[in-house]
Amino acid sequence: MYTQILHEIQQSMAPFANDGAVSNSIPELALIDPSKFGIHLVTTQGIDYGIGDSNERFSIQSISKVLALSHAFTFVGENIWNRVGVEPSGNPFNSLVQLEYEKGKPRNPFINAGALVVADILLSHLNNPKKDFLDFVRTLAHCNTINFNEKVALSEKTVGYRNAALANLLKSFGNINNDVTDVLDFYFYQCSIEMTCKELAHSFCFFANKGKTLTQNKQILTESQVKRLNALMQTCGFYDEAGEFSYKVGLPGKSGIGGGIVAIHPQKYCVATWAPRLNEKGNSVLGMKSLELLTTKTGMSIF
Amino acid sequence: MYTQILHEIQQSMAPFANDGAVSNSIPELALIDPSKFGIHLVTTQGIDYGIGDSNERFSIQSISKVLALSHAFTFVGENIWNRVGVEPSGNPFNSLVQLEYEKGKPRNPFINAGALVVADILLSHLNNPKKDFLDFVRTLAHCNTINFNEKVALSEKTVGYRNAALANLLKSFGNINNDVTDVLDFYFYQCSIEMTCKELAHSFCFFANKGKTLTQNKQILTESQVKRLNALMQTCGFYDEAGEFSYKVGLPGKSGIGGGIVAIHPQKYCVATWAPRLNEKGNSVLGMKSLELLTTKTGMSIF
Amino acid sequence: MYTQILHEIQQSMAPFANDGAVSNSIPELALIDPSKFGIHLVTTQGIDYGIGDSNERFSIQSISKVLALSHAFTFVGENIWNRVGVEPSGNPFNSLVQLEYEKGKPRNPFINAGALVVADILLSHLNNPKKDFLDFVRTLAHCNTINFNEKVALSEKTVGYRNAALANLLKSFGNINNDVTDVLDFYFYQCSIEMTCKELAHSFCFFANKGKTLTQNKQILTESQVKRLNALMQTCGFYDEAGEFSYKVGLPGKSGIGGGIVAIHPQKYCVATWAPRLNEKGNSVLGMKSLELLTTKTGMSIF
Amino acid sequence: MYTQILHEIQQSMAPFANDGAVSNSIPELALIDPSKFGIHLVTTQGIDYGIGDSNERFSIQSISKVLALSHAFTFVGENIWNRVGVEPSGNPFNSLVQLEYEKGKPRNPFINAGALVVADILLSHLNNPKKDFLDFVRTLAHCNTINFNEKVALSEKTVGYRNAALANLLKSFGNINNDVTDVLDFYFYQCSIEMTCKELAHSFCFFANKGKTLTQNKQILTESQVKRLNALMQTCGFYDEAGEFSYKVGLPGKSGIGGGIVAIHPQKYCVATWAPRLNEKGNSVLGMKSLELLTTKTGMSIF
Repeated sequence: MYTQILHEIQQSMAPFANDGAVSNSIPELALIDPSKFGIHLVTTQGIDYGIGDSNERFSIQSISKVLALSHAFTFVGENIWNRVGVEPSGNPFNSLVQLEYEKGKPRNPFINAGALVVADILLSHLNNPKKDFLDFVRTLAHCNTINFNEKVALSEKTVGYRNAALANLLKSFGNINNDVTDVLDFYFYQCSIEMTCKELAHSFCFFANKGKTLTQNKQILTESQVKRLNALMQTCGFYDEAGEFSYKVGLPGKSGIGGGIVAIHPQKYCVATWAPRLNEKGNSVLGMKSLELLTTKTGMSIF
Repeated sequence: MYTQILHEIQQSMAPFANDGAVSNSIPELALIDPSKFGIHLVTTQGIDYGIGDSNERFSIQSISKVLALSHAFTFVGENIWNRVGVEPSGNPFNSLVQLEYEKGKPRNPFINAGALVVADILLSHLNNPKKDFLDFVRTLAHCNTINFNEKVALSEKTVGYRNAALANLLKSFGNINNDVTDVLDFYFYQCSIEMTCKELAHSFCFFANKGKTLTQNKQILTESQVKRLNALMQTCGFYDEAGEFSYKVGLPGKSGIGGGIVAIHPQKYCVATWAPRLNEKGNSVLGMKSLELLTTKTGMSIF
Repeated sequence: MYTQILHEIQQSMAPFANDGAVSNSIPELALIDPSKFGIHLVTTQGIDYGIGDSNERFSIQSISKVLALSHAFTFVGENIWNRVGVEPSGNPFNSLVQLEYEKGKPRNPFINAGALVVADILLSHLNNPKKDFLDFVRTLAHCNTINFNEKVALSEKTVGYRNAALANLLKSFGNINNDVTDVLDFYFYQCSIEMTCKELAHSFCFFANKGKTLTQNKQILTESQVKRLNALMQTCGFYDEAGEFSYKVGLPGKSGIGGGIVAIHPQKYCVATWAPRLNEKGNSVLGMKSLELLTTKTGMSIF
Repeated sequence: MYTQILHEIQQSMAPFANDGAVSNSIPELALIDPSKFGIHLVTTQGIDYGIGDSNERFSIQSISKVLALSHAFTFVGENIWNRVGVEPSGNPFNSLVQLEYEKGKPRNPFINAGALVVADILLSHLNNPKKDFLDFVRTLAHCNTINFNEKVALSEKTVGYRNAALANLLKSFGNINNDVTDVLDFYFYQCSIEMTCKELAHSFCFFANKGKTLTQNKQILTESQVKRLNALMQTCGFYDEAGEFSYKVGLPGKSGIGGGIVAIHPQKYCVATWAPRLNEKGNSVLGMKSLELLTTKTGMSIF
């Protein structure tokens, strides 16, 4: 079934192929070929369906926030909510307004402010933060060649003033324990991880699989925990377009400005798309359309 | 199964019985006995499970916004999104701030501003707005004795300055077509509808039942439409606590300041709770706890 | 001296004669001839200097807020500051945002929200509010033909949704004691008063004259009180352009969307200008330029 | 006259001696003796009147913003307003909200964001920024022993996360040209300058003296320029309490969290007060009361 559907989706994308624009917020990312397009879907039975550029690596960027949160969750569990909320923000991902009004507690872990707090937590709990986090991701993906793209990380550092503003504002409210520079450094590396659609889909499949990795059956989070994080992706995974994605696609997911999107159908499948052109809210145009078509064509959503 | 679970839930509520406070925002509603508590769950197979005060009518208040939206949807369909958004607001239900910043387009139809726009749409499409809307609700509930509580409607009118401010602000932006006074009058009546937990659960069951009413199998909305409205309830149904409800309960739903909550497990059941004491966000304390327990104990959520 | 200067000013206006646009916020006001231009300056010695259309009446609109405040001040004195502040708002004159954040206490009496509170105070203290207020203004101007323009008042009522929103929001916070409709009605009448530049300059001359009217030497407010209200005009008289006016003109003053501006040089003179084309902040383009030239050419400002 | 008045003021302060609290925002400043109190007034004729601790140096902090602006003004003149506004902010001095909404253009040069832009301008125009700026201040005060307090500067650096957030946010909008770290370093040094009340009053006396220094008659700014900066101090010199100061004191001025305030009566005098206890808006309690008494007792204000 999925083979056919992915094929149809790919064909339906033609009219929208030039909509949106590659993000220019990070110089190194602006160099990506805007015509790239790939989808990979893996079922909880472990069957793989890929199409297009689904085996080419790209910068996962904000999608990494879910992996970082999952990793932090294994250390501090529900205590994390003392430092970051679970509510949609209703504001752009990098806004400082709400953070100031709400005295330094970010609305959720998927806006930048929240992700910086999560990064701070990881720094406090990991011996070799970058290496340990990378190992965590490699375990999820069952693939040892996944890596940071140092060029992208450094490129982001040269323009990351908005994130530096957020980190300093958090620090001024006492919601960053480590050095601001260290937190930003870790955060930029975390975002620079490169994966293929297939690797992404496999990495996130534990969210569809009651907390267990697909290939090794390793319990990453409890069944109850993945339900909660799925719910969080549903309400907060797409910046100020979370409602739109939820309304049209009806699945929990997370996007990144590298053009990637991951979505999860609990107990059924995990799917990752990649198409670098973004709409004005910072989400992949073709990715969102593809996933809307996917749930329409399969007739399956969580609702 | 559900009989036992509802029983256990009821027993688990004792420690929280005095948490929160009855809403004092509408004089007439402040008179409610705060100790009331009822749950009714109806499966898509039509099996009923009730406990406590589940057959006593109460003011459904904002829960009516979902019914009004559904009714408006039958007239204007997706065009409704030209006048109101689908994004969570991140602000209290009656805030004017966002409405001013966003030039009169309410974030979603479940905050007051959005519900006033929906009321305006119904006024433009119904011959006898109050009667016709009541008929719609009676059809959903399959019950002809459901009615407005005029005393509550008038009571709200005497204190409804915040809603009058919202309606006038909407009108100043051209997003109300009818007379402001008429829109407010209809809105206050709509909110004053009284139903039991059982009637509420039955009325909302078409959201769990692919758009069809339970008893008469009448198609109210298409399967695709109910999916979308379920998704909307998931992200926007609980004011600025939508994330919290989604995180803890994992089901789409809608609350009202009368103390009611409705939640939907698509293809499985619809459940309504009533307990008048509200937390500071305006949602029923026992209602939220009950539903969290329900999804924990059944092990079933949409995620 | 002033004769020559006013003449030069009038001649310097030519290049800017078509800048800005007549306000279209009130239908009746949109009909004004945009080319009107007048200045009248009266010294505290009672010497008059007029030029252009300075003897033609126009709608004083928000300039009336200073007169209303002065009148209210004679009843409640400094107690007024329990209900309205003395700080510049930094927001457009009709914004609801700040009012909501600051729980119904308007920043100052010259934004609309503040003026509505002042109107409410007058309603509570005057037997025949409209008549009594008009008498107060006539006394200040020493002219019995000054009157409301009922057509303008009614015209504003038909479009005054934003003000209705403000009044209702104030009422929801308990900062309006009278009926919202009555407050709005009085406010629209107050704003509809028509005066010539000469009448305006004379009416406001007590602010330059230690609190005494020019012609009858009647003490309206104490010397200390007029100093304070002058200070308030300095910081808050020009909506979110108060700083600009203060920076360029260096005198306390107040503008109205009818195109009028009054400015005061304490102990020296009072000047009123009229030119209906407004800049985007709602202040008269030629009025602001004229007054900037006036203080430049006379070499006199309060600083 | 002034001798007697200053004496009376000092005596009137007793009941308020313990009101407010020393700022704890900079560790080194929190060590100040809270009972310090001094006033120095110098007339444009060069006659000095001092009382209390008026010859003891203290940290001038934000008062330095006026001196930095004056210095920058000598280089770029009115062009400065392309990068910073002249409007009161209506927000706390260190707020990021408005800066984000208004896309990186600070409301005025006296809130921290604006002062950071001014610091950036000075960095771009001075060969030895710290030394050159210090020389400028020494010239104004006609005193060569005035200096930075490096301990205070470094102390502020250890806690200056909010300012770092502002500087990074400005940089993200392209409104900082130099390195963020350099701008912050210069800014912290600038704020750490220590002066006595007498030195402060003398330094600022050119604002009362048509732009010329008192002792050397050196033209720092033109007469027109000092009028404009006086007007700016009037509307923006006291954070979100500018209206209050203007209303009660009626003079342009500037405060600092070290407890100092400078006020100017154009063509008459310049006065500086020092009393470390601050009200909740960050302005010296006794300083504000003293200056209110001063204008009341002298019967002289600009209005």
